[in-house]
Amino acid sequence: MHKVVTVDLEKDILAENRRIADENRALLDKHNVVAFDFLGAIGSGKTLIIEKLIDLLKARGKRSAAIAGDVSGDDDYQRFVSHGMPAANINTGKECHLDAHLVDHALEGLPLDKIDYLFIENVGNLVCPVDFPLGSHKRVVVISVTEGDDMVRKHPAIFAFSDVIIINKVDLAQVMEVDPKILERDARRSNPGAKIIMMDARHGKGIDELAKALGL
Amino acid sequence: MHKVVTVDLEKDILAENRRIADENRALLDKHNVVAFDFLGAIGSGKTLIIEKLIDLLKARGKRSAAIAGDVSGDDDYQRFVSHGMPAANINTGKECHLDAHLVDHALEGLPLDKIDYLFIENVGNLVCPVDFPLGSHKRVVVISVTEGDDMVRKHPAIFAFSDVIIINKVDLAQVMEVDPKILERDARRSNPGAKIIMMDARHGKGIDELAKALGL
Repeated sequence: MHKVVTVDLEKDILAENRRIADENRALLDKHNVVAFDFLGAIGSGKTLIIEKLIDLLKARGKRSAAIAGDVSGDDDYQRFVSHGMPAANINTGKECHLDAHLVDHALEGLPLDKIDYLFIENVGNLVCPVDFPLGSHKRVVVISVTEGDDMVRKHPAIFAFSDVIIINKVDLAQVMEVDPKILERDARRSNPGAKIIMMDARHGKGIDELAKALGL
Repeated sequence: MHKVVTVDLEKDILAENRRIADENRALLDKHNVVAFDFLGAIGSGKTLIIEKLIDLLKARGKRSAAIAGDVSGDDDYQRFVSHGMPAANINTGKECHLDAHLVDHALEGLPLDKIDYLFIENVGNLVCPVDFPLGSHKRVVVISVTEGDDMVRKHPAIFAFSDVIIINKVDLAQVMEVDPKILERDARRSNPGAKIIMMDARHGKGIDELAKALGL
């Protein structure tokens, strides 16, 4: 009995999220802001990759803002702020993903007329964000070789949901005894149309390729 | 309106989970099986640590079984089976955690009279499992230095929820430029009573200490 009611409610919640995501997209488009949603496990390197893109865009005279989504704390938000750009921090409390409504509120506090790009960093895991589009123009999922070579097989949905798939920390593949080619093969199976990028964000490898894939 | 209804339903679901978790515990106790629930991010090393404990127990003449919880696939289940022991695979589909009801079903298929220990590997993330006790006797949370030094601050609840906290892959701390002492300090703050173990599971470091902490 409970189960039936829950499923119906879930449908309502997902439909409502999609409606607000569409509104977010319309608001971004109105202000000529292009938004990217970064997904991926905790520690996969999402924040650093966004920081590298922001610096690259700054060197080109483009202005960015960021939304940091975390269960708790403001570590990532402080990192974004240190780049001298507008940022918003969303703590989800117990929720394991951002939703369009939370992003809607964050957008209200950002100077959309003064930025060209918005980077949204979702809560770090490969499960929950799948059902909740936020209104961004492209989704990027980041995994790291340090997570093992079974990562993609265990979470096919989030790879199918993303436009760009980053396999990060490839410089550590040998010491981790992980073959990035297995991750690449599984990612290709989950999403034949996605752009897959081998990256070592710490040393800058793959950032230019990512910028190109995102149309920057 | 939806929100209110959802909250009430959530309360019901959590209460029902606790009730079944208590039943699971009673069933395990009846059969003199001690159960451990392993939590932690994807790729943190949960499966390998369980495998090491199983081998250690086998050398002592003790019999184990395992339940592998994943969104999709049977990679971890196959690893457990390869140790020649009873195992169950639970695919949660879209859910980001095991619950007591899923474990209850898995228990039905395991030879509880023929085992001494049960290892339950939860779905890999640091958010969702917190509200869903499974009936295990102790909870172990595993993090890895490869996830960065802000890991604990971002997810204090799961550390407060666990009896043993493992900081794994300490052999990679230097190459990752991560200070395990920061993780240890934050873990201590989240849970002053927990046992904290520095581990390099791949090379066997810390396994004996963990066995002792679990009363094995």
